[in-house]
Amino acid sequence: MLRTHTCGELTLNNIQQTVTLSGWIQKIRHLGGMIFIDLRDRYGITQLAFNHEERPEICEKAEKLGREWVISVTGIVIERYSKNKNIPTGDIEIEVHELEILNEAEVPPFTIEDESDGGDELRMKYRYLDIRRNPVKNNLVFRHKLGLEIRKYLSNNGFLEIETPFLVNSTPEGARDFLVPSRMNPGEFYALPQSPQTLKQLLMIAGCDRYFQIVRCFRDEDLRADRQPEFTQIDCEMSFIEQEDILNLFEGLVQHIFKTFKNLEIGKLERLSWNDAMKYYGSDKPDVRFDMRFVELNDVLQHKDFKVFNEAELIVGIKAEGCGNYSRKQIDNITDFVKSPRVGAAGMVYILCNQDGSFKSSVDKFYSQDDLRKVAEKCEAKPGDMILILSGKKSTTRKQMCELRLEMGNRLELRKAGEYKALWIVDFPLLEWDEETQRFYAMHHPFTAPKPEHESWLESRPGDVLANAYDLVINGSEIGGGSIRIHRPELQKQMFKALNFSEEQAQNQFGFLINAFKFGAPPHGGIAFGFDRLCAVLCDSDSIRDFIAFPKNNAGRDTMLPAPTPIDNKQLEELNIKLNLQTENGK
Amino acid sequence: MLRTHTCGELTLNNIQQTVTLSGWIQKIRHLGGMIFIDLRDRYGITQLAFNHEERPEICEKAEKLGREWVISVTGIVIERYSKNKNIPTGDIEIEVHELEILNEAEVPPFTIEDESDGGDELRMKYRYLDIRRNPVKNNLVFRHKLGLEIRKYLSNNGFLEIETPFLVNSTPEGARDFLVPSRMNPGEFYALPQSPQTLKQLLMIAGCDRYFQIVRCFRDEDLRADRQPEFTQIDCEMSFIEQEDILNLFEGLVQHIFKTFKNLEIGKLERLSWNDAMKYYGSDKPDVRFDMRFVELNDVLQHKDFKVFNEAELIVGIKAEGCGNYSRKQIDNITDFVKSPRVGAAGMVYILCNQDGSFKSSVDKFYSQDDLRKVAEKCEAKPGDMILILSGKKSTTRKQMCELRLEMGNRLELRKAGEYKALWIVDFPLLEWDEETQRFYAMHHPFTAPKPEHESWLESRPGDVLANAYDLVINGSEIGGGSIRIHRPELQKQMFKALNFSEEQAQNQFGFLINAFKFGAPPHGGIAFGFDRLCAVLCDSDSIRDFIAFPKNNAGRDTMLPAPTPIDNKQLEELNIKLNLQTENGK
Repeated sequence: MLRTHTCGELTLNNIQQTVTLSGWIQKIRHLGGMIFIDLRDRYGITQLAFNHEERPEICEKAEKLGREWVISVTGIVIERYSKNKNIPTGDIEIEVHELEILNEAEVPPFTIEDESDGGDELRMKYRYLDIRRNPVKNNLVFRHKLGLEIRKYLSNNGFLEIETPFLVNSTPEGARDFLVPSRMNPGEFYALPQSPQTLKQLLMIAGCDRYFQIVRCFRDEDLRADRQPEFTQIDCEMSFIEQEDILNLFEGLVQHIFKTFKNLEIGKLERLSWNDAMKYYGSDKPDVRFDMRFVELNDVLQHKDFKVFNEAELIVGIKAEGCGNYSRKQIDNITDFVKSPRVGAAGMVYILCNQDGSFKSSVDKFYSQDDLRKVAEKCEAKPGDMILILSGKKSTTRKQMCELRLEMGNRLELRKAGEYKALWIVDFPLLEWDEETQRFYAMHHPFTAPKPEHESWLESRPGDVLANAYDLVINGSEIGGGSIRIHRPELQKQMFKALNFSEEQAQNQFGFLINAFKFGAPPHGGIAFGFDRLCAVLCDSDSIRDFIAFPKNNAGRDTMLPAPTPIDNKQLEELNIKLNLQTENGK
Repeated sequence: MLRTHTCGELTLNNIQQTVTLSGWIQKIRHLGGMIFIDLRDRYGITQLAFNHEERPEICEKAEKLGREWVISVTGIVIERYSKNKNIPTGDIEIEVHELEILNEAEVPPFTIEDESDGGDELRMKYRYLDIRRNPVKNNLVFRHKLGLEIRKYLSNNGFLEIETPFLVNSTPEGARDFLVPSRMNPGEFYALPQSPQTLKQLLMIAGCDRYFQIVRCFRDEDLRADRQPEFTQIDCEMSFIEQEDILNLFEGLVQHIFKTFKNLEIGKLERLSWNDAMKYYGSDKPDVRFDMRFVELNDVLQHKDFKVFNEAELIVGIKAEGCGNYSRKQIDNITDFVKSPRVGAAGMVYILCNQDGSFKSSVDKFYSQDDLRKVAEKCEAKPGDMILILSGKKSTTRKQMCELRLEMGNRLELRKAGEYKALWIVDFPLLEWDEETQRFYAMHHPFTAPKPEHESWLESRPGDVLANAYDLVINGSEIGGGSIRIHRPELQKQMFKALNFSEEQAQNQFGFLINAFKFGAPPHGGIAFGFDRLCAVLCDSDSIRDFIAFPKNNAGRDTMLPAPTPIDNKQLEELNIKLNLQTENGK
């Protein structure tokens, strides 16, 4: 071992001990006849002291050192003259007697400090240097601990971690697959799994009873911000259960995580129907750290001459507490926000609730003070509050109001880091109608079970059928989702029919699963959590990239390795494929 | 929950309790006015009793049931009349009051019993039924427990599990990569990692200090028996260590595993140099559960007129204890074995050590009794033993003798299930000469460090340089291997030179790593274990497939899913590739 201790553990208890430390040079300071070096490793920073007078030859060597060089030193632990109360080792320093240079280092392209001067692109290209920085390193340590704790919890609850294959079959329904040409089977391809969904259902048919896996999944989608082509899922499935059992068990997991990592008792999780989530928050992943629920105002605002409202399918308002004194400029600023391309509203109506009980509104000429009072009453707005109103087509208006609500939450600092609100969204619709293709699609996937009491509606009123499906939402992020699965072959057939699958299509795409169902499938269901996002939410970060050791950029590139790259023709030939580029100019 | 208990937990302690069980029907027996059903789930089997007289309507329903149907029953736990001492629940049965059929089942294509009547192919196609069988299910349970325990052990020793990407870059040196076309980057490809070797080295440069990952790896090689295109590795790396530290730490892990899962104290692991392993066992993964070491006999056998021996580079013998009375037929049988294509020896010489001190040999006409006595003495053979001798070119003869030794070990039942011998093979050569391409190849990989005292030989006598590399061998299986890595850029350059890489080639293939080394790489090294094989060896199985939930066959096919498959032209177009099949006839 090239050290006796790490750079994070020596204290006054070690005074006068001879120790060897190894690590990277964080900082060098010259002070009179002394050189002080901050030596860093994964565990912390320890100050090294070199004395010119007492050991000139070592000091001479130390003079050559630079930032990020790797050294090993042996010396005596002594009490520090000026202590640093910010770090655990701040009471001591090492009086260096021996110095070995283990490796030199070029000057890094950005500073290895908590706040680096490196831009995103540079830090990704040199990710191995970026990880040396505490914020990134600590994220990886957190992720490790969280993964281990989840594994222990699920194992203690009888779940078996079972590894499923990565080279599987392509199922065109759903997102786009990454494909892998098979050299041994010319003209044929494997797909990388979008999730082990069907495989975990097979494991239930196999009698594994409780399965989990922390597993990489792959989706070849055009990347939006904070999406990765490969991501990690905590994938779970159970047999002989009902929805209530799954919600309770994984609520326990969520409580355990918050207790363990945040020392928070989050208690019983609120449940919100999908319908209410859309109605009150305009989103199936509402941030309920703050209230500001939607109030539907059609009944109180559609009796006057204001055409915009009268023609609207939905008029919806939110109350911004304490904003009754907003200036014209502040309000214009909010109006600009809702009109921005990202939100896309045509305009916004505001009502300021003055301290004297009167109202000031952008639609004063259409509505009386009494009209506005009714709106305020409906919104439970008090003097000093502001009401913001959007209107239009129901689904669009809800989306826009959702954006506005979150924006107001941000402006009013109601979305507090360190505060956590987890809830279940339940009672999702089973099917979604797609206008373009004029057919229903499965809202989750084709194996999601309808609520038993709605099964008979599958043919007559498919749009009304609710599913035994549920999402876990924390602070406005969808952290997990799952469902009870269909386990009876007849019901699966009905479902495929509702999805407009011919029997042949169903057999082609999911034959292996449909056939497996014939041999005694138990009632089962499950859930999957986004591990990257769970880490991010627990650490109050917006970016999953910060929790992935080597993430890809928005073009799906790893700029460090780099990947992807062109490959040899020989390799292509072996795989029985050739390139088919649209334009050959680039070559 | 569709049960109050599992099928594996009820005992006399539960007598008179009302319980609900769910599971699969293992067996149905009619006995007088009773129907007895064995109900099975992951946890065990419980006997259900249906009484015609008392509950005719339930019995009528039960009459329809068949093997592997899924049912749920509620009833009273009662003491069994004729107890079954072979199962934990054998003292009780359930007097069934309610029966619900959860799912029907077709008759399975093979029996769901410990010893099934299904052939390999059938069992793979219906793997979800195969897993219902105890032997396969127990393997998966074992694998889960082993994985969890390894994670705990390594975490307790400061290792961080850090997930590395699956969509990486292709490095043609080494085995063949599986490639993934990038849709977003036309004409470019990702590769699936053969191992996270370079990524874990980057994590050391990143200061992660101790890394591990239980991770899938991919190699597109023509599959030999018991190889899989995807396999799981326990991948580890440490910084600021020397070879001795790694051997000690992972010896601790091996001891811990044997203690935990086998209740065995295996003690300090023997270490054998690669050179001695080849000399005494003809293999770098010797099974040392039995001795039967090679004895080199050139000096005692090359002085007479026997041309075969005189022209041989190596004459080597093994002693088969207690086989001195082997019949001509038994010996012919062994000779046939060494002459079989698998072994490929031209012939075999034997010496029987008779009880009276005389010798009987197949080369009696060339060697005197005194000559043979000298051989026996060298082999430490006693009356009643047999000596088997092979000769020829050194490397070939060693390989053949290795096969013969293992065969004799099998015949004499010296390779005992339940007995475990783990050892380290150390001091591997750094480079291997390849006659065909007339160049040196890295025996492990190009980042393996030479022993410091041999560094200066890299140019002058590269073939003599030994590496700081090591393998863990258990019962003749290579379970793990690793090395100290090169961390100084100059040494890495020398290594590439010895491997006949131009600077440009090195930069092209490993530029990202070579560049990273410039920024302060710590001394580091690591090891990787084959998780599938570790499971197999610990459970005395020859087949890793038995420990993989959904394995592939020797053509790289998953016959259950199935995968791989042909795909849509639309998908190919999106990926900017087209098929390039040698013969279009098959289409």
